Order: sequence, then C-alpha cells, then structure tokens
Amino acid sequence: MKNRAKPIENLINQLNKLPGVGNKTAQRLAYHIIDMDFEKVKALSDAITSAKENVKQCSICANFTDIDPCKICNDTNRDESVICVVEYPKDVEAMERATCYHGMYHVLHGTISPNKGIGPNNLKIRELLKRLENNNIEEIIIATNPTAEGDTTALYISKLLSPLGIKTTRIAYGIPVGGDLEYYDELTISTALENRREI
Amino acid sequence: MKNRAKPIENLINQLNKLPGVGNKTAQRLAYHIIDMDFEKVKALSDAITSAKENVKQCSICANFTDIDPCKICNDTNRDESVICVVEYPKDVEAMERATCYHGMYHVLHGTISPNKGIGPNNLKIRELLKRLENNNIEEIIIATNPTAEGDTTALYISKLLSPLGIKTTRIAYGIPVGGDLEYYDELTISTALENRREI
Repeated sequence: MKNRAKPIENLINQLNKLPGVGNKTAQRLAYHIIDMDFEKVKALSDAITSAKENVKQCSICANFTDIDPCKICNDTNRDESVICVVEYPKDVEAMERATCYHGMYHVLHGTISPNKGIGPNNLKIRELLKRLENNNIEEIIIATNPTAEGDTTALYISKLLSPLGIKTTRIAYGIPVGGDLEYYDELTISTALENRREI
Repeated sequence: MKNRAKPIENLINQLNKLPGVGNKTAQRLAYHIIDMDFEKVKALSDAITSAKENVKQCSICANFTDIDPCKICNDTNRDESVICVVEYPKDVEAMERATCYHGMYHVLHGTISPNKGIGPNNLKIRELLKRLENNNIEEIIIATNPTAEGDTTALYISKLLSPLGIKTTRIAYGIPVGGDLEYYDELTISTALENRREI
C-alpha cells in the first residue's frame, strides 16, 4: 500500500510468509505488535530467535530439543522396547497429548516423496536402523500419516525391518471417535471397512 | 506440555498472546519458524523490533509513520480542506484501500469508553481542535465505527465542532453493498431504514 510506513509494510510482508497468515491477518497482527509495550515486543522477537538458535535435533530420536539427548530419550520411566516412528516433531506432541503412549519416538523429518525429490536418504531412516543395532527393541510402531507419501514411507521402513525380526505395526486408520460417517470421504470409509474388527 | 523443549514452549506462549492466535496455531507457527532458514527467522524477528522502534505517531494526524509528518500529511496532492476522523491507524488503511477519499486524516487512537476508563483526554481530540485553528478546514467527516463507543465519540466531537461553524458529517451506515437483508441484525436493518434516501 502506497501510504503505509516502510517498517509496517516490511513487518506485514514478513508475517504474511507464515503458514495460515493471510494479508488481512498479517495486517491485524502488525498493528497489534506496534501497539504492544516495547518489552513485550522484545520478548516476542527474542523468543523467535532463541527458539531457532537453541532448538536442535536430539542425537537419538531426532525430535526437536534444547538438551541432548532430549527429555523423552532421557526419561528412565519410559518403555525403551518400543519406538513410535512419526513424520515430524509436531506429531510427537500430538502423541504425547493423548498421554496413553509411554515408549520412545523416532522423528523422520519428512516422508519419502519422489515429487519433491525426497528419498529415504533425506530422512532419519539410517539413524533408526542404527538404534536397532544395540538395543532390545521389541516393537516399531509406524505412525506416519495415512497419505500416499506416509503409506509409502511406512511400507519402505517395514520392508527394511522385516529381516531384523522386530515386530512392526502401523497405527489404525478409520473414522475418528465421535465422527459421523456422513462427513468422511470414500477412502476413509473404505479404510475403516477394511480394518474392521470382530466385536 | 511436559516434554516440550523450553525455547519451543516459550515461543508458543509468546505467539499465543497475539490476537486470533490460539494454542494450535501458535504451535504450528512455532514449529514452522524452527524449520525456517536462520536468515529468514532473523528477518522476521528484526521486522518485529524494527516496526516497534521506528514507527511513531505523526505529529499532525497521529497516524503511524516512520517519517514526520507522515506521507499523507506531506502529500500536496491531497485535499487539505477535509479531515476524516477515524479510531485507529488500521481504519486509515481501510479508507485508503477504497481509494475514493483524497482528504486528510486524524487518528483518535481509541473511542470514549467510560467502562475502560478512556475519556476524551485519552484520545487525540485536543490535537484535532488545534488543527482547526490555523487551517481552512471546510469539513470534518467522522468515521468512527457504528458501535456505542464510536457513536458516543462521534457525538462528542460533533458537539465540540458545532460552535466553530465547520461542517461535520458522519459516514453512512446500512446494509453493505452486496449484502443480503436476511443476514443482518435488527440494528443494522433499522439503521438502514432510518438512513433511507429518496430514489
């Protein structure tokens, strides 16, 4: 916009690049930030750089962490015989929110996706295999998403693991709890049908 | 969350304080920021502090600006005989987007709101009156929002201006262009009826 001050224009452009932040939202946020107290603006800006500077990947599970190994890998109360393989650190958060899983994690940081030029070597698959060498792992639970890429990645990993004699499972996909058949697509419904169990 | 790295937790908390950014969005943004290149993170963080540091209020119209007087107050092509009074800098942006107005602005930075302890002295009303002393202002257009506070503020200003013999107008409120009667509340409809014009 022609009559907008340069620093405001710049802030709006920067915010606009974030996922889910459109032009309108970026504008609202920018004006809000300019109206905030200086200390609060500083705290926000510092939190952004500090997260980027201090958060690394755990050398064991590749989850984001500020200490190495991460809290979960360090936690002696967790079941070390099970590893849940997920695509991204945010998936670890989702699993932890459910509070029912007490094993370890392994974060792939993506999925096999030939379209985007991402092969197995770009993911933390080698690191997963290394973890299996020296430990008494009994089960690998693959929790990649039920997308074409997630399924391909799950299949690839399960094929690598089968000669090692480690039990490999995949979490169940179907109608979400509380969901309504009417609102789900054919693929979800056919998956739910295929995965039906006797009651 | 218990197993979340401190800097991530901190970033999520900071983002969560922004308007319209809930816990889920804050989390998504935080993980996105950590995945961004370092230079881009730095650019975002710098844009935030720089906007706060370099944006001041224009000494004439009180709009946000990095130069003083602001671009609009400096623009000799604009009609200096009309001042449009708005609540916030974002309202100037909205007016400018419409591109039909070529006069000056005056930003109140709020509305009279006894509940929040905001009286006329907390707004840029004195500065507005000062502008009227030395200039040939012919019309003041009050464009505060059609809320209780916006209406009160408009009435207050119009009463202050009436002895000065300056034409004072208020922008029209009614059904938005392209709107459908069905979707608007009684107050909007009754306002639209009251403000009806002969065709």
